[in-house]
Amino acid sequence: MKIEFKQIGVIHTPFIRLEGMPVQPAGAGGVSGTVEIFGEYREGLKDLDGFSHVILLYYFHRSQGFDLSIIPFMDTEPHGLFATRAPRRPNQIGMSVVQLDMVEDAILHVRNVDVLDGTPLFDIKPYFPEFEGVTGIRYGWLEKSGKTARETKADDRFK
Amino acid sequence: MKIEFKQIGVIHTPFIRLEGMPVQPAGAGGVSGTVEIFGEYREGLKDLDGFSHVILLYYFHRSQGFDLSIIPFMDTEPHGLFATRAPRRPNQIGMSVVQLDMVEDAILHVRNVDVLDGTPLFDIKPYFPEFEGVTGIRYGWLEKSGKTARETKADDRFK
Repeated sequence: MKIEFKQIGVIHTPFIRLEGMPVQPAGAGGVSGTVEIFGEYREGLKDLDGFSHVILLYYFHRSQGFDLSIIPFMDTEPHGLFATRAPRRPNQIGMSVVQLDMVEDAILHVRNVDVLDGTPLFDIKPYFPEFEGVTGIRYGWLEKSGKTARETKADDRFK
Repeated sequence: MKIEFKQIGVIHTPFIRLEGMPVQPAGAGGVSGTVEIFGEYREGLKDLDGFSHVILLYYFHRSQGFDLSIIPFMDTEPHGLFATRAPRRPNQIGMSVVQLDMVEDAILHVRNVDVLDGTPLFDIKPYFPEFEGVTGIRYGWLEKSGKTARETKADDRFK
């Protein structure tokens, strides 16, 4: 089964190249960007400005193909692809939680954006973590990794 | 631009009808399900069992079309679609954080699943909330809603 999705907007950021880009929103602290929604979807933004953070679902448009075992930016050992957030995946869907500063017409002003300039947008969802009902979190291979998301930058390994 | 995605697995849950289903993982506490990954992607699951929670991205396969202004399960007032997690969206991509109990071969045993039985899977990502760098959360219209995600069940409004 193949399913078709369409672009509903575009994400504008200062990152025009993958190299040196933060690998998680935590590493993109203070980096501002905008999310431009195409006019036909504008009505759907009503009341979004009450949320401090939103989830962006977008297309890893610069990634092609995938390997099921990879060495992620945050480690030096190979891991299963689904245990990482690497951009080269069977379905190139990216997800980031960003801070929402303002909604102006069909433009969201956001902070902590860790995506490439020109990234096609699929969806926006409100962020409300307490609804996930999550307690007692373990995070596998990342616990042993000496690096932190805040310090780690991308390189060209997933081009 | 249209982008094609493919199913990489299927989610099995006790919920065969939308009516009465929990509307968020918090309301599906204790509900067990399985995520079956197609054999060709199995190698990508390595090391996933180190994570206590995973993010599932899936297809709202029983939803068709969308309205940009809707009355969500959690309220009695209309809101912009992107300020809700309603299943009828321009791109029918659903997202849930579920508890991962065990990985057995190509099957994930999960808890707190709030999706319909037979839901097609697009992606699995590890969950590590502290990397989002999120502080000072406001959650808009949901703060005024008297209902909680734990109590709210779905009805047929988004069929």
